[in-house]
Amino acid sequence: MRATTIHAPGDIRVSEVPDPTITAPTDAIVKVTAGCICGSDLWPYRGENPITEGDTIGHECVGVVEEVGSEVHSFKPGDFVVVPFCHSDNTCAHCLHGAHSVCTNLGMTVSGQAEYALVTQAEGSLVKLDEMPDASMIPSLLALSDVMPTGWHAAVCAGVPEGGTVVVVGDGAVGLCGVLAASVMGAEKVIVMSRHEPRQRIATAFGATHVVAARGREGAAEVKEITDGVGADAVLECVGTDAAMGTAFAVARPGSMVGFVGVPHGVQLPVQKMFQKNVGLRGGMAPVRRYLPELLDLVTSGSIEPGLVFDSTLPLDQVADGYRAMDERRAIKVMLDLQG
Amino acid sequence: MRATTIHAPGDIRVSEVPDPTITAPTDAIVKVTAGCICGSDLWPYRGENPITEGDTIGHECVGVVEEVGSEVHSFKPGDFVVVPFCHSDNTCAHCLHGAHSVCTNLGMTVSGQAEYALVTQAEGSLVKLDEMPDASMIPSLLALSDVMPTGWHAAVCAGVPEGGTVVVVGDGAVGLCGVLAASVMGAEKVIVMSRHEPRQRIATAFGATHVVAARGREGAAEVKEITDGVGADAVLECVGTDAAMGTAFAVARPGSMVGFVGVPHGVQLPVQKMFQKNVGLRGGMAPVRRYLPELLDLVTSGSIEPGLVFDSTLPLDQVADGYRAMDERRAIKVMLDLQG
Repeated sequence: MRATTIHAPGDIRVSEVPDPTITAPTDAIVKVTAGCICGSDLWPYRGENPITEGDTIGHECVGVVEEVGSEVHSFKPGDFVVVPFCHSDNTCAHCLHGAHSVCTNLGMTVSGQAEYALVTQAEGSLVKLDEMPDASMIPSLLALSDVMPTGWHAAVCAGVPEGGTVVVVGDGAVGLCGVLAASVMGAEKVIVMSRHEPRQRIATAFGATHVVAARGREGAAEVKEITDGVGADAVLECVGTDAAMGTAFAVARPGSMVGFVGVPHGVQLPVQKMFQKNVGLRGGMAPVRRYLPELLDLVTSGSIEPGLVFDSTLPLDQVADGYRAMDERRAIKVMLDLQG
Repeated sequence: MRATTIHAPGDIRVSEVPDPTITAPTDAIVKVTAGCICGSDLWPYRGENPITEGDTIGHECVGVVEEVGSEVHSFKPGDFVVVPFCHSDNTCAHCLHGAHSVCTNLGMTVSGQAEYALVTQAEGSLVKLDEMPDASMIPSLLALSDVMPTGWHAAVCAGVPEGGTVVVVGDGAVGLCGVLAASVMGAEKVIVMSRHEPRQRIATAFGATHVVAARGREGAAEVKEITDGVGADAVLECVGTDAAMGTAFAVARPGSMVGFVGVPHGVQLPVQKMFQKNVGLRGGMAPVRRYLPELLDLVTSGSIEPGLVFDSTLPLDQVADGYRAMDERRAIKVMLDLQG
């Protein structure tokens, strides 16, 4: 099959690789309808994570079931499914406790930017639609594979209170989905920290009530002003850098929580400040499957349209352009259309 | 008045110092009935916190109101009161949100091991008893000044679930009160990590169902065994060292919370592990006043007896012996009887 592969920092190609095959009875193969590029794909692209030359890359996709293993009973070839980027059995103690991303049989999509993707715990991971979705809904369904549940997880971990004030640090696709999540959960004020006009527009469409363009101390001071000197009731840290984490703790009100979902890179947690302000931290990889039933309902009913985070759609052949555009922040998030 | 003073590491004395006086309308003076030595007093005693020579020391006490400022209306001379170690106005945005230990008018008791203590936000901080308590109840009332609300705060921050499994890291007086808190909150299994037989006895009296004497990896392995390989639903870190924090994250199940109340000394939070396991952290100085009404009811009704943490009572003159006994772990917690 044709698949996106990474060979070195900045070196993204479309290569011919072997089709994935069913090797366990819990496996399924999904023919990818659409995939996309994740902010976390930029870590290896920028050389900040190790690379195995020629590996496939991409962990977000939706598509049609092609084949299932003998223990997969709820899905059959032809079903349109959302594929969580992390695969979970949905039956182990951790899954039953809502921690699907720490499943004892955890798997990951590794060829989401390709013609076919292997799902290692199909029964516990996939969710299907009753019928083939309209093309216009594909972006929002694709967003359920990772970015929207990740923003949602930040909001859940931060304990967004109805009627409360929320700060979202980060205006990437995850941060924007965090804005949407906070808004759906009933926050009254949603403050997004963003200095990029196109991202601010989407944030506003997703329910942001305030935009703070300043960063660091200055940005924190603006948030303090908006919150009458108190700070935010809940903070979503959606970047993963030390600076973003510092801002998150600076704007959180005493007694509140920071929800964090950006893979930490060089983060030193300020334990003394956390203690002094009584501000907690909770997060990690999103337990996608846990949130999917609720989020799928919100999408199919038209209540939310997280697919707005995709501001560019490319055919697979142009995936390298997509990486470049995201790396240079010319695109927020790039969708790959595998049907073209 | 006679007061405990610290002059250098290991140098605790009883000195004659000026009586505290009312200087603000929100002040009150309390004649101390009983004070005590806190585990955190051992940090300067051991030279691990800076010392100003001759400063009074001690932040936990109960006693009788001696004099009040003009804005103190709910208390009058003769009232028996519990004095929270941190004073809060109970009216600012942080207090109204339950974060009394980050009150905008925060104060601290600084002469709790002395004849008189100044309370800077008396109206918002003190709680009084309807009548003079029986001498037998003094230890448990004194425990409400700091140690019991601190253990309680750890349990609240960790989100102890009814019927769940809780691990308490630390068998000091705070850890023991954490055991009691978890038990009152309905935990089914309460595992205390303790290698000291007298502390294990109190832990058991407070509701511990399991004692793990091993530390580090070995201790964590024992907890894993008790929890069927899953880990604890909630973990209370009641020490403040890096080793204790490491143990806390090692025994916490994915998706759970660690509540921390030990003032951090040399703690480096394992942010990658927190992310990978989806284990959160929340805590800090206890918002004592927030919990006092509930805890006072539990004590006066005889439902809990946190005063059992005091295994030694000394007159003020022998306070230096009390510090030595606690430093050498010969005593769990020393009460100072100011009436003798």
